[in-house]
Amino acid sequence: MARVLPESEESTRPKTTQLIIDADAHHTVSLKDLRPYLSDYWNHFIDNTGVAGIPSNPYPKTGHGGIRTDSIPPSGGRPGSNYEFMRQQLLDEWNISYAILNSNFQMLALLPHTDFAIALASATNRWTKEHWLARDPRLLASIVIPAQDAEASAQEIERWAHDRQFVQILLPSSSDKPYGHRRYHPIYAAAANHGLPIGIHLGGATASTPPPSPNGWFSFYIEFHAIGGALSMMTHMASLVCEGVFSKWPDLQVVMMEGGFGWIPSVMWRLDKDWKGMKHEVPWVTRRPSEYIRAHFHFTTQPIEEPEDPAHLQQIVDMIGNDKFFLFATDYPHWDFDAPDRALMPLRKDLRPKILYENAKELYRL
Amino acid sequence: MARVLPESEESTRPKTTQLIIDADAHHTVSLKDLRPYLSDYWNHFIDNTGVAGIPSNPYPKTGHGGIRTDSIPPSGGRPGSNYEFMRQQLLDEWNISYAILNSNFQMLALLPHTDFAIALASATNRWTKEHWLARDPRLLASIVIPAQDAEASAQEIERWAHDRQFVQILLPSSSDKPYGHRRYHPIYAAAANHGLPIGIHLGGATASTPPPSPNGWFSFYIEFHAIGGALSMMTHMASLVCEGVFSKWPDLQVVMMEGGFGWIPSVMWRLDKDWKGMKHEVPWVTRRPSEYIRAHFHFTTQPIEEPEDPAHLQQIVDMIGNDKFFLFATDYPHWDFDAPDRALMPLRKDLRPKILYENAKELYRL
Repeated sequence: MARVLPESEESTRPKTTQLIIDADAHHTVSLKDLRPYLSDYWNHFIDNTGVAGIPSNPYPKTGHGGIRTDSIPPSGGRPGSNYEFMRQQLLDEWNISYAILNSNFQMLALLPHTDFAIALASATNRWTKEHWLARDPRLLASIVIPAQDAEASAQEIERWAHDRQFVQILLPSSSDKPYGHRRYHPIYAAAANHGLPIGIHLGGATASTPPPSPNGWFSFYIEFHAIGGALSMMTHMASLVCEGVFSKWPDLQVVMMEGGFGWIPSVMWRLDKDWKGMKHEVPWVTRRPSEYIRAHFHFTTQPIEEPEDPAHLQQIVDMIGNDKFFLFATDYPHWDFDAPDRALMPLRKDLRPKILYENAKELYRL
Repeated sequence: MARVLPESEESTRPKTTQLIIDADAHHTVSLKDLRPYLSDYWNHFIDNTGVAGIPSNPYPKTGHGGIRTDSIPPSGGRPGSNYEFMRQQLLDEWNISYAILNSNFQMLALLPHTDFAIALASATNRWTKEHWLARDPRLLASIVIPAQDAEASAQEIERWAHDRQFVQILLPSSSDKPYGHRRYHPIYAAAANHGLPIGIHLGGATASTPPPSPNGWFSFYIEFHAIGGALSMMTHMASLVCEGVFSKWPDLQVVMMEGGFGWIPSVMWRLDKDWKGMKHEVPWVTRRPSEYIRAHFHFTTQPIEEPEDPAHLQQIVDMIGNDKFFLFATDYPHWDFDAPDRALMPLRKDLRPKILYENAKELYRL
């Protein structure tokens, strides 16, 4: 399906011939958008309870609420809510072959009311299909699932797995159990059955999950934003390996988004060392943990870590030791957007086409 | 106070002339040991409630309960409970100039009953003085404090700060609030007043703290041991910087023990990047976070991270960029003991005397 798309007439930016896949962009949905996709029962529930949205982060976000102010559509509405404007500002402007849309409604997986989450997940995916995917073959999306109920999640996956524009299954980094736990295994069985990667995207701390650190609540958004995602991603990585998920599904792939990657070598080394001494505790982990990590995990580049000495970034990449690890992402329309022509400058030149295009093309079978 | 000690007659190991300070060894206390140091009220409380100990980790530990089986004293009792045997097996065997004892009773800081914690902390420090420090000038110790009550903790610090064998204040990595929070500031005021570093040592997950990850409970000890400490140390590091602790006490030093260090570059880079965009949220953080981290944090080496390519360890050390960062530690009598002649092999030779001796000598003013 790979192809070079015609240049947009609106764009003034010099184009390169480098093909680009954006592995993490965001379209924005609201409860109001979903009402035509919900039954009378759930529409009445919304009216009756006055519920305004899904679980959200209590930290006041800095930087204009976390979005690019120039991404507010000229017609009004929230950034990421208007297809035409996203097409112009992201797809055409940067000559992007494919962009994978990850919904803000991933957070429905944290709703205490599981049946409500099931209804919202299905509505979100239908809305995404009709309002975004159907309008542009460059748009792809992750399937939103009600992870509270793994069997219902598997059913939702079955509903969309035949649609080649749904390329991934989305889980928020927030949860009340690490993702290796057997509670989630029906999700992985469905994912593996259809060759769909599991995408774990930074999700906020909420009232219905444990505090965002093992030491309770941070005071400030900067703390949560800088390390909160890493804490959860480290947890899920250790859990997925130690619970034997990759022994059960040897082809399952996991993509971690917005949790950084500078910590990966440390996790590999510590798990390997402990595995040498404690492997009898997890006999289903038959290879060194770092081998599973190299074979099963991918990371989006945004927000890319920026050492004072740019050479250190390449050293970290070499420690991780897998050229297929990284997938380029813009995180459009958030304020810390990484532009394709700048984000990868510190890395070895031969890695750039892999990160910008080839790794995602292979992983998502585009 | 630095000196070379005479060789022990028992030792058969070849000695070097390298002086060594062990920045993290463990002596073991029990409630029974402390009873002579507790009032009638608390002795009656213990009898009446049948309380058997302090909060402990629910994970069954692998590796013979986490201790070196050869460290069980010939006279019986628990490893680390017998001064003569520790002298022979640790101090004399390895020609150690000083060893800093960190008590298992650091975990009293997690007791819900604050008055009980205050009584136990005071008893622990008195027992440590009489049964260990008074018997050997090579033994030093951290002051155990009831961190639930920062004012009471400051009083306990005042009680011992005149004693040159108490060289540090001990906090467990487990807590229900990150350590930068103002709740803990009276502890830092007392520490700074006496020039005592704050030591944060790996502490177990317990029933009276949040779960050990932002995603709840790990299933296995290997997960907790491999990354649980790192998650808490990352949290405390971000919190101490972002809450302005080092702006208030510009000479305060922090020593992190058993949480690893491979993740430090990642935390520095992410905090620096976010500080550029969000510093108005924390206006008291007037320098880049990495500058505070370089100026105020130290890490004990045990358990040292072991990359497949040993050169990667030196790269991490260079990314951290501070030769005073590391303090050698054996973690005697735990099973993952690092011997001084092996642990630092992958590092640059000129760093070894600093790590084995000079950094601790300077930090603890020995």
